[in-house]
Amino acid sequence: MKKPLILVVNDDGINAPGIRKLISIMNDFGDVVVVAPDGPQSGKGHAITIESTIRCDKVIMDDGPQIEYSCSGTPVDCVKLAVNKLLKRRPDLCVSGINHGSNSSINVIYSGTMSAAVEGSLEGIPSIGFSLLDYSHEANFSEGEKYIREITKSVLESGLPDGVCLNVNIPKKEEGKEIKGVKVCRQAKANWEEEFDERIDPKGRTYYWLTGKFVNYDKGDDTDERSLENHYISVVPVQYDVTAHHAISKLNNIL
Amino acid sequence: MKKPLILVVNDDGINAPGIRKLISIMNDFGDVVVVAPDGPQSGKGHAITIESTIRCDKVIMDDGPQIEYSCSGTPVDCVKLAVNKLLKRRPDLCVSGINHGSNSSINVIYSGTMSAAVEGSLEGIPSIGFSLLDYSHEANFSEGEKYIREITKSVLESGLPDGVCLNVNIPKKEEGKEIKGVKVCRQAKANWEEEFDERIDPKGRTYYWLTGKFVNYDKGDDTDERSLENHYISVVPVQYDVTAHHAISKLNNIL
Repeated sequence: MKKPLILVVNDDGINAPGIRKLISIMNDFGDVVVVAPDGPQSGKGHAITIESTIRCDKVIMDDGPQIEYSCSGTPVDCVKLAVNKLLKRRPDLCVSGINHGSNSSINVIYSGTMSAAVEGSLEGIPSIGFSLLDYSHEANFSEGEKYIREITKSVLESGLPDGVCLNVNIPKKEEGKEIKGVKVCRQAKANWEEEFDERIDPKGRTYYWLTGKFVNYDKGDDTDERSLENHYISVVPVQYDVTAHHAISKLNNIL
Repeated sequence: MKKPLILVVNDDGINAPGIRKLISIMNDFGDVVVVAPDGPQSGKGHAITIESTIRCDKVIMDDGPQIEYSCSGTPVDCVKLAVNKLLKRRPDLCVSGINHGSNSSINVIYSGTMSAAVEGSLEGIPSIGFSLLDYSHEANFSEGEKYIREITKSVLESGLPDGVCLNVNIPKKEEGKEIKGVKVCRQAKANWEEEFDERIDPKGRTYYWLTGKFVNYDKGDDTDERSLENHYISVVPVQYDVTAHHAISKLNNIL
């Protein structure tokens, strides 16, 4: 049997420990090609580079068998460049991450990691975004490894429904708590309550830092937030058809 | 009756003719505050600025009654900054655009214009993104004006379903063809077939320009693409819950 071709991307940059771990796992499943940003691209959502040019260079990052490219573009640019220019054939799987920090609930729409996975599914490739609920550079990516392997194996064997990718979030490691398993969930209704930190620069001009507090308004038992609270891995199927189909008849009355 | 407070944003920048037109229309409906990027931010999707700072300065662009801020951030940053810092109360309406170019079908997920509208709806504000299918700086924004007014009036009067904003696209002006009306539609299944234009810089290094061809795979009569082809204005209700609810049971079998 031919080995699967696996595209690995992320948004924290090609040097991030999360993607290094994901590459080492994927090397056990197939031929791996990495196309990842040359620096942090968190919060870039589904941004693409259309007003300027993109650099992309072949690099050697470690002694693994994977082929790697470092790219100046966004996570979505990386997927487009991989599929339409760098790879000789369409990959069998696209994995993004492992993100340093949560992409559960509303974070999915801001996340470069998840936008790369969505772009993969748009290209017709079974795609998975993996995120760990730990922002630190020294985060422990090992505890979730067993489940990353299981989910990867299942998706390689069974594929995914058309137009759907997976948003997989892994609870942060806590002493005395083990991951209990995997739950398929819906995106919780949650949001960021922003505060802008207003400061004055040395020349006397105002500038802002975006800060915020995550607030979950959703009491449902079937959400990703609830599963993560209960120390399960959450898996949300994500689609790029953003039509609110249920609202079409209402709108016909309003407009 | 208190005049409505209307937030106007876009992704083409505060100088773009599209937003200048939209501001002049909105001045007839209420008190207008503009918070718009200081330069082009097309294709920025739902990007936010978290790794760097944001500038935002009060500016006077013309002799209209509106208050205006020029912002160094993305379209989504503009909405967050407006709602959480600049405005004294939550706006009654958020309008984004008029975009120079289409945001129909899959373009919705790349579009800064539409991401700003989605962010508005996340903040609980009835929000509408307007786009004209004409990329040129000299595009004719007048033909659709009557419908922009009608849709704005309806939304101010009736609001929008929770968690839903509107993606409004206006056909390009063509000699001898009049806009036939407004159709509420679903997002067409369409995609960009990308080609990367590979070039060599003066120092001999490779770089790329992203280019592509838009391809509509969807033969349905209820899509935005079909309505636009038939010279109707398309209105797609857009939601930020990207859960593929229909896929949950399937995934429970696969994983």
